[in-house]
Amino acid sequence: MQVSLINYTPNPELIIAVAARSSASSLSVEEVQHKLAQEQVTNLLKQLLSSGHLSPFEHVSFTFAIEGISRITSHQLVRHRLASYTQQSQRYVSVREHGYITPPTISARPEFLAKYQQAVRNAQELYNLMQEAGIPNEDARFVLPQAITTQLVMTMNARELLHTCSLRLCLRAQWEIVELFTRIKAEVEKVAPFLGAELKPKCYRLGYCDERESCGLFPKRKS
Amino acid sequence: MQVSLINYTPNPELIIAVAARSSASSLSVEEVQHKLAQEQVTNLLKQLLSSGHLSPFEHVSFTFAIEGISRITSHQLVRHRLASYTQQSQRYVSVREHGYITPPTISARPEFLAKYQQAVRNAQELYNLMQEAGIPNEDARFVLPQAITTQLVMTMNARELLHTCSLRLCLRAQWEIVELFTRIKAEVEKVAPFLGAELKPKCYRLGYCDERESCGLFPKRKS
Amino acid sequence: MQVSLINYTPNPELIIAVAARSSASSLSVEEVQHKLAQEQVTNLLKQLLSSGHLSPFEHVSFTFAIEGISRITSHQLVRHRLASYTQQSQRYVSVREHGYITPPTISARPEFLAKYQQAVRNAQELYNLMQEAGIPNEDARFVLPQAITTQLVMTMNARELLHTCSLRLCLRAQWEIVELFTRIKAEVEKVAPFLGAELKPKCYRLGYCDERESCGLFPKRKS
Amino acid sequence: MQVSLINYTPNPELIIAVAARSSASSLSVEEVQHKLAQEQVTNLLKQLLSSGHLSPFEHVSFTFAIEGISRITSHQLVRHRLASYTQQSQRYVSVREHGYITPPTISARPEFLAKYQQAVRNAQELYNLMQEAGIPNEDARFVLPQAITTQLVMTMNARELLHTCSLRLCLRAQWEIVELFTRIKAEVEKVAPFLGAELKPKCYRLGYCDERESCGLFPKRKS
Repeated sequence: MQVSLINYTPNPELIIAVAARSSASSLSVEEVQHKLAQEQVTNLLKQLLSSGHLSPFEHVSFTFAIEGISRITSHQLVRHRLASYTQQSQRYVSVREHGYITPPTISARPEFLAKYQQAVRNAQELYNLMQEAGIPNEDARFVLPQAITTQLVMTMNARELLHTCSLRLCLRAQWEIVELFTRIKAEVEKVAPFLGAELKPKCYRLGYCDERESCGLFPKRKS
Repeated sequence: MQVSLINYTPNPELIIAVAARSSASSLSVEEVQHKLAQEQVTNLLKQLLSSGHLSPFEHVSFTFAIEGISRITSHQLVRHRLASYTQQSQRYVSVREHGYITPPTISARPEFLAKYQQAVRNAQELYNLMQEAGIPNEDARFVLPQAITTQLVMTMNARELLHTCSLRLCLRAQWEIVELFTRIKAEVEKVAPFLGAELKPKCYRLGYCDERESCGLFPKRKS
Repeated sequence: MQVSLINYTPNPELIIAVAARSSASSLSVEEVQHKLAQEQVTNLLKQLLSSGHLSPFEHVSFTFAIEGISRITSHQLVRHRLASYTQQSQRYVSVREHGYITPPTISARPEFLAKYQQAVRNAQELYNLMQEAGIPNEDARFVLPQAITTQLVMTMNARELLHTCSLRLCLRAQWEIVELFTRIKAEVEKVAPFLGAELKPKCYRLGYCDERESCGLFPKRKS
Repeated sequence: MQVSLINYTPNPELIIAVAARSSASSLSVEEVQHKLAQEQVTNLLKQLLSSGHLSPFEHVSFTFAIEGISRITSHQLVRHRLASYTQQSQRYVSVREHGYITPPTISARPEFLAKYQQAVRNAQELYNLMQEAGIPNEDARFVLPQAITTQLVMTMNARELLHTCSLRLCLRAQWEIVELFTRIKAEVEKVAPFLGAELKPKCYRLGYCDERESCGLFPKRKS
């Protein structure tokens, strides 16, 4: 899996703070921007987060190239509707040379690993065979396992990043999507350290675990 | 594939017309509703469609149970973000007894059909084997082909149905999703005949084909 | 202010439960629907709410005719983007006979009430005068006070109703929009008693107040 | 009215092209980016626009500080739901020193202009009086005319800019919002000349006028 931040709105933390502050100020946006020192920026972001006033976080967005994830994970990922995706097409692109994902629980079991690898290879060979014989890509791919990898470009604003990370960094999420959002968080931290650090499972925000069973990080809420 | 309309907002065409009319009327919504005869309803909907004033179509929505589509098609489907989906989980539900889709281009080629069926069966057997041996569903499923079927509940408002049908009833869309939206259209027609009849490829609305190559239904736009 | 529920998806609580249950079941949607008893429906909704799994609530929506609210409140209301609005146009509809809202804090001060009423009347008279003299509605309305009333049709799904009520039933929201959502809640309760009862300020869900100052209903979160 | 572009995703046209191209390529996103020359970028954007494949335009967004527009126009503006807004609050900010908009049709009529100005001034004075006497900002503002100006920060992606400009640059839109989007277009043109030039009324895209009456720029569609 490879995740790289290929674009983002510059000065993301400042812009969030400027938007938030200008909504409660009689100054112009430009005047607000000149007056905000870095320390105030961080304090303002903290206040917004703790009071759940998250709309200013929508003003900045991050664009990632995501490569080498399974079609299982891309199917889960695009369920987050407040983001923009451009995914590699299996209709227009032949997937002959694509890799595939092996879940760690299968890698750990030698008695299954070989069979798993063989099954994927067999499917790929049948795909190639059908494709060469004139079956369209879009139909040949029905035989390919869900493990096959895909790539996509995703743009998400910071509010939705806070939301998706709150769900997908939870240890109850599937391991592959946890890894994906762990890498997304790492990329954001490079250019927006405060914001990146705030990308964390929902229990940190709530102060308790609202899942059926807690992983132990935070206790279940008393009912 | 099975598509059944399991719920919808009653009197959909009337409600669209009432909302649209009341925006340009000094009467109350109730008064508008009493005054609208069926013939006026249809005329008003036609006007809205021809002038592209589509927001009143958002006030009604349709909920479908969709069963027996491949994960390829469900992955395409959920890319339409202005709708609500609840899909059967491959994490919580074992897919042992699920069917799979065979593309017509493969059915038509006996030399591939048997191999295709065998490949799917082999994958399902390995899935079963791994699952019985304690590999979690969510990991075992990596070996399953994309042909495996899924089911979901989808709710979409009439504006988005107009939009998605305009794209997915185009003959350039993949055959399985064309079939899906053909069935969706048929279900809508049963309870809202005018609206259902208006669910059609984008070329009908535009008056020309804007795809790279026309299927012949409408000519390409002169540039 | 008048709020009336003019349409909604039938059996809303059942449909939410059916969608949720079918995502974790190997049964068909129809089979799930037959098996769900009312008591199970309520228990399932409670589980969804307490664990924050809210997407099944999107499958049902409610359409309201809202009349006699100020343009201040309609401007606030339409900031909720996950809903559909058709608002009476001040371009196409003359507002000569529209009423206006008087805030209670002004009604309570006789020294201002008369001046307030006079100011509104003067603005309305100038509006009428300009309109009769050929100034377009859309320009004459610039002189009208924000207190002037408007009407609109709004459709919102149950997930967004839970969200908007969590914000707008908070006593820190403006009194007019609190009244609006109190009436919306009352309308929902008539047809979906469990769901209606769950429409409440966010502090009930969180277990604490995350606003700067608590109204006393729930304590501030310990930091 | 003042509109200034305060932030945007760098290299917007390149990023759109990279996303689009990588969806139909077996190359990695990085490889695609290296291979795209400027001429190809423009050609690719043209193809996307003419075939209506607009989703790659979502990957770039533009943030504007918008100042000195009436509350009428801000109310219209925020009806576009696929954008992010942070508006100056009339609850937390006193509007004592705000300006107001005078429609040209009123400026052109001396017999109304003086009355209009007097009415606005009277309302502002009553606002000040009530506010000083302890009436909250949020209630005192009910007397203020809709002409009063507001400011906001708006972020919109390029796909939604294409859509909103297609509606709001139409000469049938209200003059103030036409001016707003004319300025938005001018700001985009400074940093993304091709994209900015493509922000135009819908008739340019359609090849005909779908409004009830054409302004003459394009003929009505033959029915």
